[in-house]
Amino acid sequence: KIDIKRLMKTINESAEIGRLSRGGICRLALTDEDKEMRDLYVKWLKKIGLQVRIDDFGNIYGRKEGKNPDAPPVLIGSHLDTQPEGGRYDGILGVLAGLEVLTVLNESAIQTERPIEIINFTNEEGSRFEPPILGAGGLSGHFNQDFVYTRTDREGKAFLEELQRIGYHGEKRNRIQNSYCYLELHIEQGPVLEHKNLDIGVVTGIQGMDWLEVKITGQSDHAGPTPMNMRKDALYVASKLIQLIRDTIINYNEEATATVGRMAIKPNSINCVPGEVIFSVDVRHSDDTVKEYLSQVIIEKLSIAAATENVSIEINKIWETSSSHFSEELIQVISKTTEELGYTSQKMISGAGHDSKYMNEITPTAMIFIPCVDGKSHCQEEFTSQEAIEKGANLLLHTVCKLANA
Amino acid sequence: KIDIKRLMKTINESAEIGRLSRGGICRLALTDEDKEMRDLYVKWLKKIGLQVRIDDFGNIYGRKEGKNPDAPPVLIGSHLDTQPEGGRYDGILGVLAGLEVLTVLNESAIQTERPIEIINFTNEEGSRFEPPILGAGGLSGHFNQDFVYTRTDREGKAFLEELQRIGYHGEKRNRIQNSYCYLELHIEQGPVLEHKNLDIGVVTGIQGMDWLEVKITGQSDHAGPTPMNMRKDALYVASKLIQLIRDTIINYNEEATATVGRMAIKPNSINCVPGEVIFSVDVRHSDDTVKEYLSQVIIEKLSIAAATENVSIEINKIWETSSSHFSEELIQVISKTTEELGYTSQKMISGAGHDSKYMNEITPTAMIFIPCVDGKSHCQEEFTSQEAIEKGANLLLHTVCKLANA
Ligand SMILES: NC(=O)NCCC(=O)O
Ligand SMILES: NC(=O)NCCC(=O)O
Repeated sequence: KIDIKRLMKTINESAEIGRLSRGGICRLALTDEDKEMRDLYVKWLKKIGLQVRIDDFGNIYGRKEGKNPDAPPVLIGSHLDTQPEGGRYDGILGVLAGLEVLTVLNESAIQTERPIEIINFTNEEGSRFEPPILGAGGLSGHFNQDFVYTRTDREGKAFLEELQRIGYHGEKRNRIQNSYCYLELHIEQGPVLEHKNLDIGVVTGIQGMDWLEVKITGQSDHAGPTPMNMRKDALYVASKLIQLIRDTIINYNEEATATVGRMAIKPNSINCVPGEVIFSVDVRHSDDTVKEYLSQVIIEKLSIAAATENVSIEINKIWETSSSHFSEELIQVISKTTEELGYTSQKMISGAGHDSKYMNEITPTAMIFIPCVDGKSHCQEEFTSQEAIEKGANLLLHTVCKLANA
Repeated sequence: KIDIKRLMKTINESAEIGRLSRGGICRLALTDEDKEMRDLYVKWLKKIGLQVRIDDFGNIYGRKEGKNPDAPPVLIGSHLDTQPEGGRYDGILGVLAGLEVLTVLNESAIQTERPIEIINFTNEEGSRFEPPILGAGGLSGHFNQDFVYTRTDREGKAFLEELQRIGYHGEKRNRIQNSYCYLELHIEQGPVLEHKNLDIGVVTGIQGMDWLEVKITGQSDHAGPTPMNMRKDALYVASKLIQLIRDTIINYNEEATATVGRMAIKPNSINCVPGEVIFSVDVRHSDDTVKEYLSQVIIEKLSIAAATENVSIEINKIWETSSSHFSEELIQVISKTTEELGYTSQKMISGAGHDSKYMNEITPTAMIFIPCVDGKSHCQEEFTSQEAIEKGANLLLHTVCKLANA
């Protein structure tokens, strides 16, 4: 059994780094806060005697040796970076629960057959460097090193430059070479488990997503003497398009989502008609064909609408992933262990992307979800109860033990 | 007659400071670029032998003595600051044409009865420190010193702090003490003169404006697992309200304007449902009763619409001015001089605010407009022909001479 008090202590301590006024966290990838968190985390890894490695993407590995050091290890992982106004659990729970699992095994002097490694992946969130899941995607080979290194934030700073700056640019030979499987514990970030009053979600896969970037070019002008009918107001047109996106999705079905999350306005001055607006659209659906269809419909509708508004529009698909399907075997092991522990559960698909997405491309992978209050995530209000965390971490412990002795 | 080549040279030289890629200027008030421009301008003032003073708002005065040094001076002025993506003429023309007028008088060894002073006012644009026209408003007593000093930009830097930083915090006793009248030459910033093919607009006043700030608080959430019908998307609601504002204005009449010019989104992350949006509304109409009515209608419609959307809304009027009416006498002098010079003209009201607005509260004031291409302003494309500038500057010269000898 994991020690929930100890786990809550590490979670609370980590929540101090980048802490925001309403209790959330701002710890964007490769910032000073991320460095501070990494330093503390590495200290924790060493304290329980793990061997620490950093790879060329800044992914941090903590390894507990197995009786058979040559056996491919069981991997546990997630991420310690957050959204600009993120919560205390998204990603963090998976890493620190992994640490707790290894702490318990150490205390109980249990050595499993296989080695166990916990991984903190770099830039899972994707809010500083787009796309998300760069560390895991780099490790899996989904993204090549050059692609990852050249991602830039909104100030034009590159991933590699920032990785070096915070001192976490490790070596390529430290990447995981082989593995038995990968497991990730995470909060659901949606409302299903809470609504159904279930302890555990056994995650069978991750839905795909498309990221579009829409640029509207109108004409900046003076807000005073420019008559309304002579304007080419890019923000007015953008606001029409946002309505159109929502209507399209709502009228399609209940499962599809589309989100306009970031927007930049130029010149963004109170007495200027906006001349340029750039905004993002995040489109998701568990069925890849539907997702692609919806993106296509959105692109077409926006193009037509913009044409009637006398502005020019440019739409690019800046990222896309198809849906992932996790290992049947692992799903069964998790389901069985859930039953043995007496927890209630259901199988479900993840609406959010995770490091598991790309790990699934190189090793058998599965995830464990626990409920979170009101399904809220990517916000300061994100919360999950101590009881839920305890169950999730215990399930992780027992699953890991089984697999590491298999 | 003014020397148009020389005037174009100073205008072009000034356009190098803060120059943008498409030929416009970014020279926000009290930035390093503003300081560089001020330093050059002071050098120019001294070169033609003017006495230079800086007041406690950073307004810069250049004085040419009159035969009667005790006579209240004729004032000429405008501003050297620009919008974030501003043009090369808005404000700059008025100051540099003033400089050219005094240069011509010097060359011709003409000393007028009254002294003449040219003024560069601080922060006319209002895009860094809101509200606009702070330097002239401070001088006129419309704003008290403390109000002006405590205005902050979006990074929280205060007006006073920045004024001191760039070394232009002068003394209160350097403010203008008395004056005979104030004149300002400016581009129209609207399409009327160009459409009617007229040389000059004799400005009779400035329309009033209201500035509203709208804050929508929804709930930030994850863009993936959060179903559309459970969202409180502040940006989606904002986009509805922007439609509503435009519809309200368009359906009212052709003269009214309302502009949503700046907007800030939180957390502004691609995979987050926006939890908070703040945007501005600039409402203008030449009839103050109509302007107030329209602001009231907008406030009410937005409040009702937001209520049905399950978000909270807060609307504040952050600034308001009523319309200004310039000096009948000055308007007549300008009209007469226009005729004498053989220029075509019409009387008109200004759609944009100007330093004249607050100068009009303490001294007889009037303005001269010249056409600008397509009526564009507050954009890099802002342009006005050399011929138009020449006529405007000549009219200013002759009007100033008449008044300074009256
Ligand atoms: N789990 C999580 O919030 N990942 C970020 C990537 C996404 O937007 O789904
Ligand atoms: N002339 C000018 O652009 N002034 C800025 C104040 C306004 O928005 O009217």
